[in-house]
Amino acid sequence: MLTGPFLSRNWLGSTDDFDKADTVMVGLPYDGTCCYKPGSRFAPEEIRIASFDIESYSPVFDKDLEETGFYDAGELELRYGNREDTLFRIKRAARETFALGKKWLGIGGEHLVTLPAVKACAEKFPELALIHFDAHADLNDVYLNESLSHATVIRRISEFIKPENIAQVGIRSGSRDEYNWINRFNALVKTPDELLNRVGDRPVYLSIDLDVLDPSVLCGTGTPEPGGMSFNELVEWLVAIKGLNIAGADVVELAPHYDPSRASSITAAKVIREVLFILSGI
Amino acid sequence: MLTGPFLSRNWLGSTDDFDKADTVMVGLPYDGTCCYKPGSRFAPEEIRIASFDIESYSPVFDKDLEETGFYDAGELELRYGNREDTLFRIKRAARETFALGKKWLGIGGEHLVTLPAVKACAEKFPELALIHFDAHADLNDVYLNESLSHATVIRRISEFIKPENIAQVGIRSGSRDEYNWINRFNALVKTPDELLNRVGDRPVYLSIDLDVLDPSVLCGTGTPEPGGMSFNELVEWLVAIKGLNIAGADVVELAPHYDPSRASSITAAKVIREVLFILSGI
Amino acid sequence: MLTGPFLSRNWLGSTDDFDKADTVMVGLPYDGTCCYKPGSRFAPEEIRIASFDIESYSPVFDKDLEETGFYDAGELELRYGNREDTLFRIKRAARETFALGKKWLGIGGEHLVTLPAVKACAEKFPELALIHFDAHADLNDVYLNESLSHATVIRRISEFIKPENIAQVGIRSGSRDEYNWINRFNALVKTPDELLNRVGDRPVYLSIDLDVLDPSVLCGTGTPEPGGMSFNELVEWLVAIKGLNIAGADVVELAPHYDPSRASSITAAKVIREVLFILSGI
Amino acid sequence: MLTGPFLSRNWLGSTDDFDKADTVMVGLPYDGTCCYKPGSRFAPEEIRIASFDIESYSPVFDKDLEETGFYDAGELELRYGNREDTLFRIKRAARETFALGKKWLGIGGEHLVTLPAVKACAEKFPELALIHFDAHADLNDVYLNESLSHATVIRRISEFIKPENIAQVGIRSGSRDEYNWINRFNALVKTPDELLNRVGDRPVYLSIDLDVLDPSVLCGTGTPEPGGMSFNELVEWLVAIKGLNIAGADVVELAPHYDPSRASSITAAKVIREVLFILSGI
Amino acid sequence: MLTGPFLSRNWLGSTDDFDKADTVMVGLPYDGTCCYKPGSRFAPEEIRIASFDIESYSPVFDKDLEETGFYDAGELELRYGNREDTLFRIKRAARETFALGKKWLGIGGEHLVTLPAVKACAEKFPELALIHFDAHADLNDVYLNESLSHATVIRRISEFIKPENIAQVGIRSGSRDEYNWINRFNALVKTPDELLNRVGDRPVYLSIDLDVLDPSVLCGTGTPEPGGMSFNELVEWLVAIKGLNIAGADVVELAPHYDPSRASSITAAKVIREVLFILSGI
Amino acid sequence: MLTGPFLSRNWLGSTDDFDKADTVMVGLPYDGTCCYKPGSRFAPEEIRIASFDIESYSPVFDKDLEETGFYDAGELELRYGNREDTLFRIKRAARETFALGKKWLGIGGEHLVTLPAVKACAEKFPELALIHFDAHADLNDVYLNESLSHATVIRRISEFIKPENIAQVGIRSGSRDEYNWINRFNALVKTPDELLNRVGDRPVYLSIDLDVLDPSVLCGTGTPEPGGMSFNELVEWLVAIKGLNIAGADVVELAPHYDPSRASSITAAKVIREVLFILSGI
Repeated sequence: MLTGPFLSRNWLGSTDDFDKADTVMVGLPYDGTCCYKPGSRFAPEEIRIASFDIESYSPVFDKDLEETGFYDAGELELRYGNREDTLFRIKRAARETFALGKKWLGIGGEHLVTLPAVKACAEKFPELALIHFDAHADLNDVYLNESLSHATVIRRISEFIKPENIAQVGIRSGSRDEYNWINRFNALVKTPDELLNRVGDRPVYLSIDLDVLDPSVLCGTGTPEPGGMSFNELVEWLVAIKGLNIAGADVVELAPHYDPSRASSITAAKVIREVLFILSGI
Repeated sequence: MLTGPFLSRNWLGSTDDFDKADTVMVGLPYDGTCCYKPGSRFAPEEIRIASFDIESYSPVFDKDLEETGFYDAGELELRYGNREDTLFRIKRAARETFALGKKWLGIGGEHLVTLPAVKACAEKFPELALIHFDAHADLNDVYLNESLSHATVIRRISEFIKPENIAQVGIRSGSRDEYNWINRFNALVKTPDELLNRVGDRPVYLSIDLDVLDPSVLCGTGTPEPGGMSFNELVEWLVAIKGLNIAGADVVELAPHYDPSRASSITAAKVIREVLFILSGI
Repeated sequence: MLTGPFLSRNWLGSTDDFDKADTVMVGLPYDGTCCYKPGSRFAPEEIRIASFDIESYSPVFDKDLEETGFYDAGELELRYGNREDTLFRIKRAARETFALGKKWLGIGGEHLVTLPAVKACAEKFPELALIHFDAHADLNDVYLNESLSHATVIRRISEFIKPENIAQVGIRSGSRDEYNWINRFNALVKTPDELLNRVGDRPVYLSIDLDVLDPSVLCGTGTPEPGGMSFNELVEWLVAIKGLNIAGADVVELAPHYDPSRASSITAAKVIREVLFILSGI
Repeated sequence: MLTGPFLSRNWLGSTDDFDKADTVMVGLPYDGTCCYKPGSRFAPEEIRIASFDIESYSPVFDKDLEETGFYDAGELELRYGNREDTLFRIKRAARETFALGKKWLGIGGEHLVTLPAVKACAEKFPELALIHFDAHADLNDVYLNESLSHATVIRRISEFIKPENIAQVGIRSGSRDEYNWINRFNALVKTPDELLNRVGDRPVYLSIDLDVLDPSVLCGTGTPEPGGMSFNELVEWLVAIKGLNIAGADVVELAPHYDPSRASSITAAKVIREVLFILSGI
Repeated sequence: MLTGPFLSRNWLGSTDDFDKADTVMVGLPYDGTCCYKPGSRFAPEEIRIASFDIESYSPVFDKDLEETGFYDAGELELRYGNREDTLFRIKRAARETFALGKKWLGIGGEHLVTLPAVKACAEKFPELALIHFDAHADLNDVYLNESLSHATVIRRISEFIKPENIAQVGIRSGSRDEYNWINRFNALVKTPDELLNRVGDRPVYLSIDLDVLDPSVLCGTGTPEPGGMSFNELVEWLVAIKGLNIAGADVVELAPHYDPSRASSITAAKVIREVLFILSGI
Repeated sequence: MLTGPFLSRNWLGSTDDFDKADTVMVGLPYDGTCCYKPGSRFAPEEIRIASFDIESYSPVFDKDLEETGFYDAGELELRYGNREDTLFRIKRAARETFALGKKWLGIGGEHLVTLPAVKACAEKFPELALIHFDAHADLNDVYLNESLSHATVIRRISEFIKPENIAQVGIRSGSRDEYNWINRFNALVKTPDELLNRVGDRPVYLSIDLDVLDPSVLCGTGTPEPGGMSFNELVEWLVAIKGLNIAGADVVELAPHYDPSRASSITAAKVIREVLFILSGI
């Protein structure tokens, strides 16, 4: 080979050694059921590029990414017109990850990619709890006649994780039916303390739909919903849960091209950086 | 006709029955006196399209748009080069609306479209008060040699609604002369209580210039002015005034093309959704 | 209702009377199998809006749209995650159109929407020929493991319309296998005369993938392919075929948001205007 | 003052000496009657900035701008909401220019700014001919009920310059009525020879609506019209008329913000550079 | 000259009389060491244009720009490929400004332009303190093998201004080494009181890297860093320091083209307006 | 590792085996001397991503990229503020490539990156000829006081490759001095035959500045210059020279972010695909 140095094509700070990695990052470029503005398929690649616009050191956690031991496995090849095959491929990869005793970090893609990963995680950890950051309840039983979509994903998950073990944060949009479900199960927590009480010491899957952030902070998403939280508020939630036993996580629904400034992609990268610290048990 | 279903081309949740509607929504695509960045002429159409990106149910008001009974009358055909004819057409439509005992909801367009609607409203309700959300005072007597412009509109209104009955919220930009006017009449209220005290039990016309929001929240406007309120702060003001007798309203000054993410259009749609709940007397 | 005039929400020049219309325009907002850059779902709405940026009179055909008698039926509600149901709904609408003795004009959406319409058309006209304008051959047997996709659509059509009755114009991209198919059947015609010889006096379905135009002319499409034809060259082809018996047509693959100037949407509207003249038998 | 050098804020190659200048360039930032997409008000400033992206030397004319002796007078302050005052201010400036024996070069702004300049020019040169490059005929007698608009400007001019002395180039869009006018007076010339024959040795006013160029070449305009000429074709027309006695000129209808690449602004600057060579009698 | 009025090409409210001005504003269009997204070279021009979108009166300071006496000297011509010559030209201009007893206001450009200005300022005021608003520490000793870059600028300054006299505000990103430096010298102040205590009554150079603002407020910058302050928070800091003896200042790192809404440019202009009030000793 | 398939992060069709490759593709992300609009530093990454939007098969050359045997070596890490070190690193990599008997394909970056590669190539092939596609002559002896810049690069090359062995294609912009040089050496060829005659049977370095294309075809470049060639015209030139002995090549000056449609990136990828066929001796 030629004398370099050459620029890395992997995520900032990732290790080259799959076997030694504690966490496996997998890109999930799928937006096939998105019913508004598509484009989250481009997110894994854009976030990876944007990761080089941030520092590897986090003053909040006082750690550097190089201390976390995560492996960037690349983007799965998924088929936009074939939802079932897409779910199958994701589930297989997640299952393999958990079987190796590693943690899963999915980079969406739309929110439906969470379903197979949580399924695989719950197979391994039957007492799994779900922490769900989102602007939207995603609790429809059926949406536009479909039972498998980004708008039904949490409802589907509630069929194998008990509603009592699901904690939602930041929800501010839904139908009356979805709010009835939320109220029936007290799923929407308002403070970190409520959240910690609800999940207890169960193993946790953490799913962050980036539209939980206010559109001013992250406008590059398919269904921006005014009235959300600031970046620092989200970080405060993450700091609060850093002691939990988080088995898997994902960060989804960036649709980067809607934000020509690319600030949304950088914000997503920084959220993922902080999630990596939490996953690594810092 | 063919078997559908076909997508609606009216505002989310509008009724098809003009006669039964309590509120009439009228698009006012005019930006002829805009002296900075034009484009609010495109707002009514873009907001209507964006209305399908939000839910018809509001968790804040615990109501669904289908319970409000509003009618989307369409966009008036206005003439950009002819200010006087534009004002005439808007006034005629507003007058007809009030004559039928209905409420008016104008969707701008620039802020000058408020003038003929308030005039028509004040003809019907001589004790009318004005609640004015805006970043800019709009209190110039003459602006660039013109007495009829988006920058003079509230001053013109103050010639037939007494300054004491005008309450301004969110103003953060103006000339020294405009601030002198504000201070002379204590027009700028700081809290919902001040606002409620000022308007008392008069019938109210509510005019929201969307640039009252911070540019981070809504950058798609002709004269973004840093230092504004968040979306949730605006909603808190709306919640505070929901018990008032609001006879007419408008939401103006979105210039959608300056925000390629379209988050501004969605934010405008959500503001209008909440205004619709207020107009319907919830 | 209020005194207007109000702006039309239908396509420029469309009639209000379905029964008297010779041609039915149907929006097909579907891009579910798009494997590169999605967004053609937004095309029918954007083109309709753009139609008001062009004249209703065509100097090329010396006719006005008001003389053509077409009816804008609206956009079908389609389901992004459910390809089969989407194909069913389009086929049903097309079949109803042909059953009434009317002509079909589909406004895509991605190219897969052509398949059910051509099927319905071929049921009515068994001798149907296809004229296919495109940059891409769309002749894959299977694409990313899928047999039903925008990249296989002409191959699927070749299973019920004989390859000899398919004429392709403007193709400049494909795999070696696709070019072998083209060469085997001499499907790619180079001149209007070749085209007229190939289709003879058969009834014709005309499908225009807008990426047949050079990306300089129309960059708002999912897979822009350098080296295409100019707008005037496309019009010359349309003039050449105006005497044919065209039973149905579609214009697909505009993805309007990739062109912030909106010139692509206006170009699409103007192409459709000229197609309307051809359909009306001028 | 401080030691520099400092960057110029005037047009590339302009002289600092008004008195010695043969040609006066005046910015006309007005788009008040624009009925589609506004924004040509920003053109004079953007073109001036873009002028520094091109060379001052033209290989076509083998001359440098510094040899032309033109003076950049700045942008007139115009009033968007007041068409009549705008026309007055432009006419006054043009009249002063012609009275000093200088040539006028207006930088639009919308096409209505041509009217007062041609009026002032025809006062000085009663035998004036008009050469009109445009995509649109601009020959409406009344447009949206207005007689003074960018869509009627050439018709208004035809009331004081005989239609026989008006030559149009590049027109490809209009109503049937406008085309009837064109045909009645043979106003649309197809070749440079036809053009030279038509204008003869009369003094000439040259008005270039930049949308005569194809939208691929210049998408930053309010009403892009597919099917136009290339940049080199326009230059060929300019070379053909360089020997004429051109008393005044304008270049109008750039709306720069619709082209985020800014190539449209650079193209406008290069057109103006070549027009400056023609005006200087090279 | 012609009768106008003509639009100004200088900053809103600047005086025409260099000799009488107390403050000299100098544009510094350089971004040669920017290692992420370049474009701050365009900032001085864009901010100047944007200055006409804001009012000259500040309700916060109750003053008008016309009362401040500042002179817009224009943009220095700098050489992108030649860092050393660029630093030389800036230093010479700053030195001349201070020699005349005037205050310096640099408009960046990237942050490296601060270095020569602070050097010139410290030559005149040996006890100079630095107030540094920024998201990034800019404290690298060497960055990408370079000792002179926008990422090392404060470290370089710390070699001639004692660390004890440097106060940083808003830092939220850096390497572990940079944070060690910050902690060692307690450079990062949290409240206005801490800031005032740290600088005491020394003469002050104020450097504002605009990315200290949250990307939601100002996304038009080369390295947007989530989690920053709001516009009003920044203004509060400015109000707090208005009584200090500020000898020079700069506002840097706007990269305007990344924000197509141009709200970032307007925000920069408004920050500079408030800085002008502080510089003028109000 | 996990079961995939995973998406490739190398250029479409590249081989994984450096040793067997005939051609080495090296990204050169440097735009440090760009004096207008920077951004070509982002080109290598964007083109690589865009390569997956085109087919690997070329109907013009009837070959597939998999038959060419090229190796994507990645992007060199270069230092924006340090021109000399950048030139050193490129030269070292090019020299190593030629020493191994392989061909060089540089992907710019700005045009200055051509200089060290041609130097390395001429060391190996003293009779080297240069074929230079460009809109701009790049023949300044000194530009903005600098002798090493994208605007002087061909002049510098002419100091070690005789002017008689330099053939320029597509030049349409330059100063009078540059045109004098061109005319003195007859460097600008008008037809493929002229080109072939000029270079004879010498080994050739091929440098394509993408702005040789018309801005309508490729607006994503720092200095778009109206009046250029179409994509098909460029391909015709490439076809004409395919029999030459091309030792090295580069494709430079894409600045992808100026074209939000990304058509420019796709066009660049397609140009590079065809260049790869020429390099491989097809």
